[in-house]
Amino acid sequence: MTFKTHGDYATRARASFARQAMMTTLGAQIADVAPGQVRLTLPFNPDLTQQHGFMHAGAITSVLDTAAGFAAYTLMPEDAAVLTVELKSSLLRPAAGVRFHITGQVVKPGRTIIFTEATAMAEDGQGVHTEIARLSASMMVVQGRAFRG
Amino acid sequence: MTFKTHGDYATRARASFARQAMMTTLGAQIADVAPGQVRLTLPFNPDLTQQHGFMHAGAITSVLDTAAGFAAYTLMPEDAAVLTVELKSSLLRPAAGVRFHITGQVVKPGRTIIFTEATAMAEDGQGVHTEIARLSASMMVVQGRAFRG
Amino acid sequence: MTFKTHGDYATRARASFARQAMMTTLGAQIADVAPGQVRLTLPFNPDLTQQHGFMHAGAITSVLDTAAGFAAYTLMPEDAAVLTVELKSSLLRPAAGVRFHITGQVVKPGRTIIFTEATAMAEDGQGVHTEIARLSASMMVVQGRAFRG
Amino acid sequence: MTFKTHGDYATRARASFARQAMMTTLGAQIADVAPGQVRLTLPFNPDLTQQHGFMHAGAITSVLDTAAGFAAYTLMPEDAAVLTVELKSSLLRPAAGVRFHITGQVVKPGRTIIFTEATAMAEDGQGVHTEIARLSASMMVVQGRAFRG
Repeated sequence: MTFKTHGDYATRARASFARQAMMTTLGAQIADVAPGQVRLTLPFNPDLTQQHGFMHAGAITSVLDTAAGFAAYTLMPEDAAVLTVELKSSLLRPAAGVRFHITGQVVKPGRTIIFTEATAMAEDGQGVHTEIARLSASMMVVQGRAFRG
Repeated sequence: MTFKTHGDYATRARASFARQAMMTTLGAQIADVAPGQVRLTLPFNPDLTQQHGFMHAGAITSVLDTAAGFAAYTLMPEDAAVLTVELKSSLLRPAAGVRFHITGQVVKPGRTIIFTEATAMAEDGQGVHTEIARLSASMMVVQGRAFRG
Repeated sequence: MTFKTHGDYATRARASFARQAMMTTLGAQIADVAPGQVRLTLPFNPDLTQQHGFMHAGAITSVLDTAAGFAAYTLMPEDAAVLTVELKSSLLRPAAGVRFHITGQVVKPGRTIIFTEATAMAEDGQGVHTEIARLSASMMVVQGRAFRG
Repeated sequence: MTFKTHGDYATRARASFARQAMMTTLGAQIADVAPGQVRLTLPFNPDLTQQHGFMHAGAITSVLDTAAGFAAYTLMPEDAAVLTVELKSSLLRPAAGVRFHITGQVVKPGRTIIFTEATAMAEDGQGVHTEIARLSASMMVVQGRAFRG
């Protein structure tokens, strides 16, 4: 598989991420941007839990989707925007932990559709990292519309 | 298809929803609870947007998942808890609107796995309602563990 | 939702279906073609079973995918071809029955991506029809390549 | 991750596979059985094609599902059966090739639900192998019913 980036993809990705108010609300941060791969971190936050005190599946899925979307975005032309067509999230284990590491990865680039995956690892505060969720998502390259990033 | 509820399922569902801090953070509210069906509302909130000003796919997916999960919960025994096994969310249109109506529905009840779907409609403030997303999710009935609801 | 067909979409759909050798192998037939909707039938066939004597999830998913793909195809320009981007199939019940009726439906048309769903009903030979599976799939409109249909 | 097998899991898996008439119809064969992993091969067959001459998405998805299901089965108790709850198949590239290698893998074992993935590689006859599809599926462990395997 060959990855082709365009211009300063990392700066564009970080700037676009900074415009996602949802990520600020969740407390997610970009840890790393590489060609076809983006890693985010999300600290545990009691405001994002479900009824049993674990992080809500929707909070985890939101960062999985964002990591996957920006992984796709690193391979897009400079004037393109990324939209999620669909995503599937598998909740392997309850989302317990002090911090979560979410990695999005391009599985197959494309001119119109970019196939991506993402994984979420929970860190327990003792150095143990356990996979809690996986995502499979189709991202769309959108050009020539009003929006970018 | 036959739906079987147990005791005061509606009160249990509303009490469990109230314990989902994530729903408070998103601003989602229960509008209706019926056997095998739950309807939520979510007002537009700039804190939940992505980089183009639409509601983030993760915010919409979170409420779709919750609506579907509580739809399943209305059919569960009194001592059971609901866990999402997996969900697929299809983002039909950009999530633009002043308010969103999300309906979760049981498609096929079961002792262990309950199949659900959910749909999100966007309201534009002029009375026009447009479907923006659909969810398909498998919910698990969990009994005999430490948690309920 | 508005559906726009192009020319003699029904004849094009039936001709393209006839070129799907896989459908002949499975024994599936087109029962109906309408704008944004296609209905197929599949008789029970012991050659398509899994280890417990039910129809294999893959056989059912194959016809769900085809019904959904042709539902999308009825809305495509005359020189376009349809490709499945991804599909999710939920196996609600074991696929027991003498005949299966599979209906594909467009949920949201689009220039590039068409969102579809499909459902499979099993007929037991006594007139009872029971839903056994559901599909959610993204179809892509492909133009300007070597293939059509 | 720890994998626990039970008795002669490989012989049980091969015997159960042999009872899947659908696999005989498709021409799929077991190449390898290991704890939590099963590899199948599928030769190109014009009877399994779609309208452009590629292998039908349903044929590829059928073997992806079977590889994933038997990967889960290798970790199940001796009296258990495997059922697919749901599957998502992503069609990365057209399924062109002389032979396909499909590997199913357990991602997360469980008492009731086993999370699996699978991948399909196409071989072009010149030694080049290209990934054409990926699957994510939830498998259910079924005990105490009439069927096994």
